[in-house]
Amino acid sequence: MDLKGKLVVAQGGGPTAVINQSMVGVALEARKYPQITKVYGALNGINGIVNQNFVDLSQETTENLELVAATPSSGLGSTRDKPDAKYCEHIFQVFRAHDVRYFFYIGGNDSSDTVRIVNEYAKNNNYDFRAIHIPKTIDNDLMCNDHTPGFPSAARFVAQAFMGINLDNRALPGVHISVIMGRHAGFLAAASAAARLYPDDGPHLIYTPECPFSIDKFIIDVKSVYDRLGRCVVSVSEGIQDKNGTPVLASMMNLATDAHGNVQLSGTGALGELLANKVKEKLSIGRVRSDTFGYLQRSFMGCVSDVDQREAREVGEKGVQFAMNGATEGSVTINRIGNYAVDYRLNPIEDIAAKTKLMPDEFINAESNYVTPAFMDYLRPLLGSGMPEAARLRAPRTEKLN
Amino acid sequence: MDLKGKLVVAQGGGPTAVINQSMVGVALEARKYPQITKVYGALNGINGIVNQNFVDLSQETTENLELVAATPSSGLGSTRDKPDAKYCEHIFQVFRAHDVRYFFYIGGNDSSDTVRIVNEYAKNNNYDFRAIHIPKTIDNDLMCNDHTPGFPSAARFVAQAFMGINLDNRALPGVHISVIMGRHAGFLAAASAAARLYPDDGPHLIYTPECPFSIDKFIIDVKSVYDRLGRCVVSVSEGIQDKNGTPVLASMMNLATDAHGNVQLSGTGALGELLANKVKEKLSIGRVRSDTFGYLQRSFMGCVSDVDQREAREVGEKGVQFAMNGATEGSVTINRIGNYAVDYRLNPIEDIAAKTKLMPDEFINAESNYVTPAFMDYLRPLLGSGMPEAARLRAPRTEKLN
Repeated sequence: MDLKGKLVVAQGGGPTAVINQSMVGVALEARKYPQITKVYGALNGINGIVNQNFVDLSQETTENLELVAATPSSGLGSTRDKPDAKYCEHIFQVFRAHDVRYFFYIGGNDSSDTVRIVNEYAKNNNYDFRAIHIPKTIDNDLMCNDHTPGFPSAARFVAQAFMGINLDNRALPGVHISVIMGRHAGFLAAASAAARLYPDDGPHLIYTPECPFSIDKFIIDVKSVYDRLGRCVVSVSEGIQDKNGTPVLASMMNLATDAHGNVQLSGTGALGELLANKVKEKLSIGRVRSDTFGYLQRSFMGCVSDVDQREAREVGEKGVQFAMNGATEGSVTINRIGNYAVDYRLNPIEDIAAKTKLMPDEFINAESNYVTPAFMDYLRPLLGSGMPEAARLRAPRTEKLN
Repeated sequence: MDLKGKLVVAQGGGPTAVINQSMVGVALEARKYPQITKVYGALNGINGIVNQNFVDLSQETTENLELVAATPSSGLGSTRDKPDAKYCEHIFQVFRAHDVRYFFYIGGNDSSDTVRIVNEYAKNNNYDFRAIHIPKTIDNDLMCNDHTPGFPSAARFVAQAFMGINLDNRALPGVHISVIMGRHAGFLAAASAAARLYPDDGPHLIYTPECPFSIDKFIIDVKSVYDRLGRCVVSVSEGIQDKNGTPVLASMMNLATDAHGNVQLSGTGALGELLANKVKEKLSIGRVRSDTFGYLQRSFMGCVSDVDQREAREVGEKGVQFAMNGATEGSVTINRIGNYAVDYRLNPIEDIAAKTKLMPDEFINAESNYVTPAFMDYLRPLLGSGMPEAARLRAPRTEKLN
């Protein structure tokens, strides 16, 4: 119970709007325990460990920690490094030298796998050690979690962005296609549905990687909405795949290259542009536009869910509490126990590490082109308080004269 | 003074976050005057006039008008139509039939030219008529205006987006290039500078259409920042031009086609991707990303400058007051009379119509790759209250052991 030594907290993978809440949750809680001799932050994830790039969070003011907690992106820096056996050896050389006995790694699937690997190394080498994974990912794709910190704020950004895109598209009608982050799981693209207030609001169509994407069906869907409303707003996950599991971008690029022998397309805007060009070509609609949300959706400053902030703080704090109460390893998970209330558990790291949760079938409609009311029930409480609402004129039409 | 008849208000061109404030400013003020027999809103700009698609804003609740005022994008819909002689004839057939004597058109350069054309037609045809242009454009490029409604909120979005992009780039270092709206004037790309709090914060480089863009100089600039900081955040106007005035996108696409004979690039993401590919190719930097802000920057729901909201409301209200005090034509302009205070004037429409204001030289640095302190003094008060601020850890580095 009273394992004495230093604690290291680090952040891995893509930043989120609330990942610093978790880091500060760990730091503030850890600073209360006398057996934790120092609270270190490793800079740029595990890369900072092997290079001994630490900052001493025991010497940071509470006031500034709170300011950093409210700041998006990873305050300690991040990394895409993943440790192999040799890397692990380096980590533990450093851990031994500094007498580090507690390790908290805030991240997604890859980071949870890092915790598993590091912990295994500790066990195999009889190093008395506690390693806890703290969840984070805007993709919302961690197993055993109702949702993951970072997702609610990114979802809120996507919803607010679609409110604006819908209003823009209403003012200057046409087809608008937005490409949203999400290589395997479609939660974030699906969150665009929260923009809808009136029955004819966009998004009108949502495509996620969970359902095989057919370009022909897509064109039929767009035509159907456009014929009905004179406009169409579409939300698409970047990772949509065809029925063989090939990303649509890759399969359409090959198609294009085969047909014309000379088209090279790459980079962030390509999928949206490909889909927009197909709509133009097949439906002869003049005004077809695409946007790719890119990095804006994961660290925009000033669009955050208060529910997300609170929970991100708590998973960090709970992680330390679990470790101080004897847990030697695991991943803190968010569990929905009321509408809306959550509790936190410590799950075996193997249940989370390097696995991917997808959207369950009951969240996607039968046509595979929109979400269900069950998804909206799931999503709404996560978006937090003070969501803006769009208003429409209700003034009556006047009579035409001649 | 007491010209009796109906009033028509309409919205033209690209939507902004506050264009409905101006529409509501016109409507609420106009409803006070008995000689204005009805306040009509034309749907989709002047297109709604020729098609007699009007809503009766005299029959709209004040409460709902206030809610619509706070909603981004054009609540009456918009248009890109520009009237020729025949179109004008249609407009006045409708105006005569409905006894419309006041016309308020909220828009940018093109819309102000429409007001000029319509007013000229009225004069030539002895139709007793008052037509006022109400300014609006995120491009901030209207003559005689200190700034234009819509720009401050778009600038705030861009600044908040760059705060996030800077923090993201700090966490996972590399080169990040963002492409911002602005075909002729670079104000909006320049507004990214408001994201900078610490001296090493991005954006580190800003390129606007006002200065000839050289790809070789750009590569040298990026290298210089990257060598110094290990990262580089760049803000670029979509309309950057080479020394011959050719848009960079067009000239580089031609180059690419000449060199490889087979590259087709088009659409929203192309400029950012071209620049990113050049950086990768010339500087061998692994992590180079680009984002194109697209429609998000002009109608994102939930990011607005309160200064902008107030002024957008006032230009509408003042427009009606000018007309009710005898003005027959003109464009309402914003004039800075204090730090920070503005007043409104009615300028001759010819001074604004179809002209473009560019960034003055004193707002751009000698190297043509950043803004000056004078620009920051100009910009800061426009962003409004409650701008978020990013905080950094200040915890001391620990000693390395071996």
